[in-house]
Amino acid sequence: MKKVSVVGGTGYTGSEIIELIIRHPEVELTHVSSRIEEPIKFGDLFPRFFARTDVLCEALDVDKFSKDSDLVFLALPHTVSMEVAPKFIEKGKKVIDLSADYRLDSVSFKKWYAKDHTDKANLEKAVYGLPEVYREKIKKALLVANPGCYPTGVILALAPIVKTVNEIGATIIVDSKSGTTGAGKKATLALSYSEVDENFKSYKENEHQHIPEMERILSDAANSDVKVNFTPHLLPLKRGILSTIYIVADKLPDVDIIYSKYAKMYKDEPFVRLRPLGSMPQISEVVNTNFCDIGIKSARGVLIIVSCIDNLVKGAAGQAVQNMNLMLGLSEGSGLI
Amino acid sequence: MKKVSVVGGTGYTGSEIIELIIRHPEVELTHVSSRIEEPIKFGDLFPRFFARTDVLCEALDVDKFSKDSDLVFLALPHTVSMEVAPKFIEKGKKVIDLSADYRLDSVSFKKWYAKDHTDKANLEKAVYGLPEVYREKIKKALLVANPGCYPTGVILALAPIVKTVNEIGATIIVDSKSGTTGAGKKATLALSYSEVDENFKSYKENEHQHIPEMERILSDAANSDVKVNFTPHLLPLKRGILSTIYIVADKLPDVDIIYSKYAKMYKDEPFVRLRPLGSMPQISEVVNTNFCDIGIKSARGVLIIVSCIDNLVKGAAGQAVQNMNLMLGLSEGSGLI
Amino acid sequence: MKKVSVVGGTGYTGSEIIELIIRHPEVELTHVSSRIEEPIKFGDLFPRFFARTDVLCEALDVDKFSKDSDLVFLALPHTVSMEVAPKFIEKGKKVIDLSADYRLDSVSFKKWYAKDHTDKANLEKAVYGLPEVYREKIKKALLVANPGCYPTGVILALAPIVKTVNEIGATIIVDSKSGTTGAGKKATLALSYSEVDENFKSYKENEHQHIPEMERILSDAANSDVKVNFTPHLLPLKRGILSTIYIVADKLPDVDIIYSKYAKMYKDEPFVRLRPLGSMPQISEVVNTNFCDIGIKSARGVLIIVSCIDNLVKGAAGQAVQNMNLMLGLSEGSGLI
Amino acid sequence: MKKVSVVGGTGYTGSEIIELIIRHPEVELTHVSSRIEEPIKFGDLFPRFFARTDVLCEALDVDKFSKDSDLVFLALPHTVSMEVAPKFIEKGKKVIDLSADYRLDSVSFKKWYAKDHTDKANLEKAVYGLPEVYREKIKKALLVANPGCYPTGVILALAPIVKTVNEIGATIIVDSKSGTTGAGKKATLALSYSEVDENFKSYKENEHQHIPEMERILSDAANSDVKVNFTPHLLPLKRGILSTIYIVADKLPDVDIIYSKYAKMYKDEPFVRLRPLGSMPQISEVVNTNFCDIGIKSARGVLIIVSCIDNLVKGAAGQAVQNMNLMLGLSEGSGLI
Repeated sequence: MKKVSVVGGTGYTGSEIIELIIRHPEVELTHVSSRIEEPIKFGDLFPRFFARTDVLCEALDVDKFSKDSDLVFLALPHTVSMEVAPKFIEKGKKVIDLSADYRLDSVSFKKWYAKDHTDKANLEKAVYGLPEVYREKIKKALLVANPGCYPTGVILALAPIVKTVNEIGATIIVDSKSGTTGAGKKATLALSYSEVDENFKSYKENEHQHIPEMERILSDAANSDVKVNFTPHLLPLKRGILSTIYIVADKLPDVDIIYSKYAKMYKDEPFVRLRPLGSMPQISEVVNTNFCDIGIKSARGVLIIVSCIDNLVKGAAGQAVQNMNLMLGLSEGSGLI
Repeated sequence: MKKVSVVGGTGYTGSEIIELIIRHPEVELTHVSSRIEEPIKFGDLFPRFFARTDVLCEALDVDKFSKDSDLVFLALPHTVSMEVAPKFIEKGKKVIDLSADYRLDSVSFKKWYAKDHTDKANLEKAVYGLPEVYREKIKKALLVANPGCYPTGVILALAPIVKTVNEIGATIIVDSKSGTTGAGKKATLALSYSEVDENFKSYKENEHQHIPEMERILSDAANSDVKVNFTPHLLPLKRGILSTIYIVADKLPDVDIIYSKYAKMYKDEPFVRLRPLGSMPQISEVVNTNFCDIGIKSARGVLIIVSCIDNLVKGAAGQAVQNMNLMLGLSEGSGLI
Repeated sequence: MKKVSVVGGTGYTGSEIIELIIRHPEVELTHVSSRIEEPIKFGDLFPRFFARTDVLCEALDVDKFSKDSDLVFLALPHTVSMEVAPKFIEKGKKVIDLSADYRLDSVSFKKWYAKDHTDKANLEKAVYGLPEVYREKIKKALLVANPGCYPTGVILALAPIVKTVNEIGATIIVDSKSGTTGAGKKATLALSYSEVDENFKSYKENEHQHIPEMERILSDAANSDVKVNFTPHLLPLKRGILSTIYIVADKLPDVDIIYSKYAKMYKDEPFVRLRPLGSMPQISEVVNTNFCDIGIKSARGVLIIVSCIDNLVKGAAGQAVQNMNLMLGLSEGSGLI
Repeated sequence: MKKVSVVGGTGYTGSEIIELIIRHPEVELTHVSSRIEEPIKFGDLFPRFFARTDVLCEALDVDKFSKDSDLVFLALPHTVSMEVAPKFIEKGKKVIDLSADYRLDSVSFKKWYAKDHTDKANLEKAVYGLPEVYREKIKKALLVANPGCYPTGVILALAPIVKTVNEIGATIIVDSKSGTTGAGKKATLALSYSEVDENFKSYKENEHQHIPEMERILSDAANSDVKVNFTPHLLPLKRGILSTIYIVADKLPDVDIIYSKYAKMYKDEPFVRLRPLGSMPQISEVVNTNFCDIGIKSARGVLIIVSCIDNLVKGAAGQAVQNMNLMLGLSEGSGLI
């Protein structure tokens, strides 16, 4: 059995990692941390986990956690992770960071997160944890930057055609809709039930901090600068992101040619499911799974791509476990199907 | 046109009063207060009200508000109202208080709200604002204590038979379920969408602070001490309370006799709708209305009564407007149907 | 008091008209029809209306309804209205039809609704009931085709700039999200709670039957052919449509110039609320109102417009009442604020 | 690997069994049936299962299914199961029936399901599949009647004290609230999103067909006739049942004595979690798990018990898999944690 710890286990992402590790047949959970005075059984803190794990929730102790872990998950707020990650890396521990701290270069990071990066050395070595694009690098990585939830669904929906998009000079419009857990476990009025229920709204229209992450990875895939116009919305539901993507061009390639690019790229992928041409996925089909489902359609001159993920699974904890499997030499889908 | 002001207009209850007064054909809204530095148009603060009212939201000024008001609504937190109400009463203004501050006697108040009552003089004169029980007193009152949301639905469901209940030594079990706006406009994790959605729970089982209010009014109606066993639950919806009430006794009177007591008491009530015997109301039938719908059924030796209200209308703002109509000599249903 | 009848009162749209007419200070509801054997009080059929109206729900009788009505609302399924409308028009009664039967020319109608139009004479004379565009024609119309829910929000969001859009050769991408009542009152598995809850999906991507309606009216406004790329989605909520609209062009005009076009067109409109530049509306701000709220923003070279309506009010029944007010010479906002 | 088949795989219960068997480490799914003309891959029928199983959905063929199965799940409508079960039993196959067909004696069955029982021979031998009460019998059973969803949560909440309840002459009031999947996969208006959303209602108040099932099992546990007063309600959520149970008596035993009875009965149970005295469970804590969580509290002379389950897991498919594990000699919790 491999051993892992979770730093920051009380948020939605941290708890979802714990949920997945408890069910994982080849990995054992040794430590969970939180900003807490006295250690307490995780199952006493959250009754959902009662009788399912004996793990304690305790204050972070890098030495102790390192001693009992082959790999550490950091489920910490942005700008906090970069203070913690180097401590584990120094001890030779593999790290999967679920914050945004290692996803951008230091210049972009400062621009979008308004803070100087304090761990530039590791930032340069960090691998972007999207297995469908960087699988081989992930296998050998010491530090993996787990992708953001919106970028996961959007990048997977665009990667196969982003080169073509740039060749034909097309414009990319991404209209994403996310459930509330994507915003984290927060006591804010804007996220209260009475405000979100029976409501729907856009926010940060074409100026969300996930844009540079999408553009960086897609530009890498296209070998040229890709521009993503991205507008997120808040759905009255807990889990799931659906992105509707429009490719606008004077003239599009034949949709069968486009479809074949997706089919080729995702043929053997364990967690990307390409729907038959013209059939679109919906959120309920991927909730509580690690799948990213993708549908493609051409209608009245516009190419429409719809992708769905569970933001807490493929968009966070599930993808982190998928990365962990790769980094620890386990079967990629272990504990995830 | 009569003139009214709302002290505390930014919570759900205060805003609902404003919504109702804007539509009211015989009453004008002159002032709205909130803890705010600079006055701002209420419609600029809340886009829902944009272009519907010119009223300002400003800091409370008792002199100014009194000058322009025939009646003042207090939609303030518990224990704050009792500091404000006497100031308006002193100026001869009629007051409808929507907090719990004037609903109990001072002993009960201290026990359940953990604070000495600071306005005992007015407390003694306050009239409980349930028109179906205290209509004539309300018409002449200077200070009305608007009922709590749970008590409104429960008292109306029990008032016609509470005397009988005591006579036969029956036990009252009230199982209530409320939407989230009943908990107020709050930034707490427990009320966040991610926690409430797809969830349901009980709370303060048989020890909720609305119990003494129910028991006080029902004991008054029965002319003997009534005991109410009351357990509330939180529903994943915004508006509405449904209370399922069980009357447990060795031997119940014939259900037709019971039904006739309801029919008699509510025959001419504008806002209580008694369903045919055996037919039960549901929340969607009363949402956004000032009605309390009541259904009655006897099955396998138990009497079951179901009542529904919209907690923000009949359970708060609508009932306050109904009381206002009575206090200002307007038609009781004006602006409410 | 003016008198009106509702043909087809048991669906969501018909019931919403009845709700609005009951509250209307200048109009009386005389008849309501449905496919029903024996007349029954509408309030006995739907407890929500109990004690609020004495109107009967009965089988349609054109003579009887005509005798007691200045105007008739048809809330019937598509292709049924065109069988009924001519009978009332023949008797000189004003008609507001809420189906799609009189919104398109006969060629488009046949293409999108798969049936020959059977009332081409009236089709030619029908006025499209969007007061913000056709107010003067509506005032004099005998037959008004009430707009579809999606078209209402989309046309109002685009009308001020559609001429500019065509001049600069821009592409219009409309991504709309609607609540479930927009699909009507239906017993289908796809609309069941267990399927819709915690789910979200696109449908009829860029091939929805409301496209020709949008394009027809916008082309009329632009004086040239307008192409609308439109993809609807189903939201897990009851009421409301939010449309996110992207204007894609090589070079956009300055956003202040664009904003001024909206400000000019909607300056005196009672039911269109233009938000300050950069501020976007959300569904909860318009639910249960007749407003269409519009927000505009330019970001990273894309013009983004968001519009919100309540699909049953401004998207159906409310707009019908607004049209009724114009047709009967009443104040346009009567009964709607 | 053991082999199982599912007869009736397209409803919510059947699909949940398939979901659980796919994840089960020791059991293989060989056949799934439905009323279908041509065989189709189950994952093509329901995209949620795409790429997760190769099983076909085909018409029922008792010979074929029997040949490849150690055990067969029947997820069929009531009164259909009793036509199918004997065919598999005849072939020596173990059967778990999830309908109501084998839960009652033939007299009760006829009374509550309005049909003569057609398989009385097997009915007499069927074991009620509640492992916490009938574990040893289940291990040896050929035919298990999987409990109803409401009875599971109610019986587990009452079994430890039902003897005491009868001894002290107490009355049992059960107020249950269930999510919509409990009503099955149905195209009915009453279960449509527009009707259920933002709504809550009671139904079949103290006359639901699950009452005789509860009373039968609890009477067996108490060794005397137990009366359960049971009123269900429909919650606007998909999964989960919370039952609030009131024990009304002139004088209750000390709550610590009562609590110890629960502690004793459930000490080693893998799927019943007793909360600390006074702490109550909520639905989100058990959703997607096979747990029944139980909380107990005494307040103002009333004993209050709250139990929660996921109606599709512990209330149906999960309990069926738990029974299967027992019947096939596997570890009771295999595939369920």
